[in-house]
Amino acid sequence: MNVVPSLGSLCDVTGIRVGHHQRVSSAWRTGTTVVLLPPGTRGGVSVRGAAPGTRETDLLGPDTLVPHVDAICLTGGSAFGLDAVAGVMKFLAEQSRGFKVGDRHNWVVPIVPAAVIFDLGRSGHFDNRPDADFGARACRKARPRFDVGAVGAGTGARAGGLQGGVGTASTITADGYTVAALAVVNSVGSPIDPDTGLPWHIGRWTAPSLSSTRLRRLRDLLVSAPGSSLNTTIGLVATDAPLNKAQCGKMADVAHDGLARAIRPAHSMNDGDCVFAVATGTSPTTFPASTNPSTDLPIGAVNRLLTAAADVFAESCTGAILTATSIGGPPAYQDFARKQSRPGGGPGTLH
Amino acid sequence: MNVVPSLGSLCDVTGIRVGHHQRVSSAWRTGTTVVLLPPGTRGGVSVRGAAPGTRETDLLGPDTLVPHVDAICLTGGSAFGLDAVAGVMKFLAEQSRGFKVGDRHNWVVPIVPAAVIFDLGRSGHFDNRPDADFGARACRKARPRFDVGAVGAGTGARAGGLQGGVGTASTITADGYTVAALAVVNSVGSPIDPDTGLPWHIGRWTAPSLSSTRLRRLRDLLVSAPGSSLNTTIGLVATDAPLNKAQCGKMADVAHDGLARAIRPAHSMNDGDCVFAVATGTSPTTFPASTNPSTDLPIGAVNRLLTAAADVFAESCTGAILTATSIGGPPAYQDFARKQSRPGGGPGTLH
Repeated sequence: MNVVPSLGSLCDVTGIRVGHHQRVSSAWRTGTTVVLLPPGTRGGVSVRGAAPGTRETDLLGPDTLVPHVDAICLTGGSAFGLDAVAGVMKFLAEQSRGFKVGDRHNWVVPIVPAAVIFDLGRSGHFDNRPDADFGARACRKARPRFDVGAVGAGTGARAGGLQGGVGTASTITADGYTVAALAVVNSVGSPIDPDTGLPWHIGRWTAPSLSSTRLRRLRDLLVSAPGSSLNTTIGLVATDAPLNKAQCGKMADVAHDGLARAIRPAHSMNDGDCVFAVATGTSPTTFPASTNPSTDLPIGAVNRLLTAAADVFAESCTGAILTATSIGGPPAYQDFARKQSRPGGGPGTLH
Repeated sequence: MNVVPSLGSLCDVTGIRVGHHQRVSSAWRTGTTVVLLPPGTRGGVSVRGAAPGTRETDLLGPDTLVPHVDAICLTGGSAFGLDAVAGVMKFLAEQSRGFKVGDRHNWVVPIVPAAVIFDLGRSGHFDNRPDADFGARACRKARPRFDVGAVGAGTGARAGGLQGGVGTASTITADGYTVAALAVVNSVGSPIDPDTGLPWHIGRWTAPSLSSTRLRRLRDLLVSAPGSSLNTTIGLVATDAPLNKAQCGKMADVAHDGLARAIRPAHSMNDGDCVFAVATGTSPTTFPASTNPSTDLPIGAVNRLLTAAADVFAESCTGAILTATSIGGPPAYQDFARKQSRPGGGPGTLH
C-alpha cells in the first residue's frame, strides 16, 4: 500500500517491530496493530480525549513499580477490542518476555498497555471485532517493515468522512537521537482543510494538487460527513534517547500538540485520543553529566525530543490519510488527489 | 462462610448485586468478583498502589464523556485476569446494558472498569487464572446477598501470611445516605498488629480473644511471612447519594484512608491498591439548593459521605481477614482466634 513515499518509520528506532492483523470482507472491517518493543524500553502515556478506551495505563505513572513496557497494542473494536491484548500477552509470555514474578523462566507478566479506536458496526456487523486471536496474529507478523494506510488498527478507521488509517514518520534530532511515531487516525475532526482540500499539517509531505472538480467533490464530502458518536486518534511516539518514565509521559503529552496541528477539531468529548511514548535508551549518543538533577539529559536535548515528537506525530496523522486507500468503506483522500505526495526530507527509510 | 456476623453489605445500596466465581482445587486457587450496578450509576477511581493492573480507568475521569458505569470487575490473575472483563461485557451487552452507540438495542458498549490482584502461581499452576468465563459466571451468580471471605477475587488472596479474602460493610450517614464497601485484601502489609494479634482497625467488629499460645503462633507467622513481589488491595465504595463523577473520584481517594488504617504498611511499591467509588443517586434524601455551586449537596453532607467511605472500607478490609477460612493455602486468622467477632452496630443486614 506504499504508493506514497516515506518520511521514515516507527521502526527507525532500533529494535522496534510492528505487526498488523485485519479482516476485510462484506462482514468485517477492523483490525489490530501491535508494536513490539526491545527489552528495557520505558513508557509513558497521555490520555487527552474524553472518551478513552484503555488498559494498563495506570502502571505507566512515573511513580510506579514496573520499569519496562513489552509492547503497545492499538486496536479497533472499542472497549471490546481490549481483548486483543490477551493474545499479545500470550505471545510474549511464551518467549518469557515480561515482568518477572517468580523463579521459573515463564513466570512473567508481559506489560502491554493498550488503547482502542471506535469502529464498531462499520462493516454492518456489530459483533465482528478484534479478539485475542487478532493480537496474537499481529505479533506473529511483526517485522521492522510494515504497511501503512487502511491496515491493522486503521482498517475500520475514518476521519472527516474519509478512510482513516495508520501513518508513520521519523526524524533525527540535532543531538543524534531518532524520534519516530505511529498514529491511527479515526478522528471526529478532519485532517483536511475543507477550504483548500489540503492537509492541515503538510510537514515534510509534498502538497498534492487537486483539480477544481475534485476539490469541489472533496469539499462536499468533508462538509456533509456525518458526525460520529465516538471516534479517536491513538498512537505512540518512540525514541532511542534514555528517557525515564516521567519524561516519557511528558513526551506523550507534547505529541498531542502534533495531533492538534494535524486534526481539527481534536480532543473532543467524542474522541478517546491517547498517545503512548516509549524510550529504548539504545542510542550511542551520550552527554557529559547534566547540571540539572531532574534529568540525565540536558534540558535542551529533552526539548528537542519533545518538539520532534510533536512533529513526527503530526506527520504520522497526515500520512495516515495520504496513504490510505479505499477498502469498501468511505472514500480515500487518494480518490480525490490521485497524486503521489513526495517527502521533502527525513531519513527516507521505507516503512 | 458467614461464621462472623455482619456489619452490613455493599448491597445495602439499593440495586447493587454481587457475584463470585472461583475455582479451588489442587491446581486452582483464584477467582473473580463482579459488582453489577443499577442503571444511571456514576463512578470514579483512585489508584494509589505503585503496581496496579487496571482496565477502563481513564474513562472515569471527571471530564470524560461516558456518564455511567455498568459494572466493576475485581479479579485474580494479575494483568492476565483483566480478560475476565470480556465475559462481563458479553453478559451486559446481551441485556442491552451499556453506552449506546447506535440505533439498534444491542449496539451498546458496556462500561466495566476493572482491577486485579496478584495471585499467580499460588496453586502451583501459573497458567490457571481467571478468563472471560470467570467474568460471565460471576455475573450469572450475582445476587443482592453474597458470600465473604476466601471467595471470588479473594480466593487466591493472602495478607501478611494469612489467607486473604473479600470483606464488606455498610453504614448510614446522619443525612440518611447509605455508604457501603467491598474490599479484596491481598496486601503486602498485614491487617493484624503482630504485637497484639488483633486487627489494626477494629471499627465496629468485636475484638477476638486469643490464648497466649495462639498469639505466639500467630506472631511467629506474621513476622516470618515471606514478602511477595506483588500484592494489592482492591475494592469499591458505593453510596445512594447523588454524587457526580468528580465527587466519586474524591470518595475513592478518601476510601484509601480506610485502607491505610486497616493495613500496615499500605500503598507500597509492590501493591497495586485501587479503589473505585460509585454513586447510584437513588436515595430519596434531598437538600435545599446548595450555596456552593460546585456541588448539589451541602459540603457537610459530602464530608460525612467521605468519612463513612473511609470507615466502611477499613471495616471491609478487617472483615475480609476475620471472615476468611483456610482453603488449602495459607492459614486463616480464624485458625488462631477460633472465636466469632460480633458487630457492635451497623445496619445488620446479612451479606
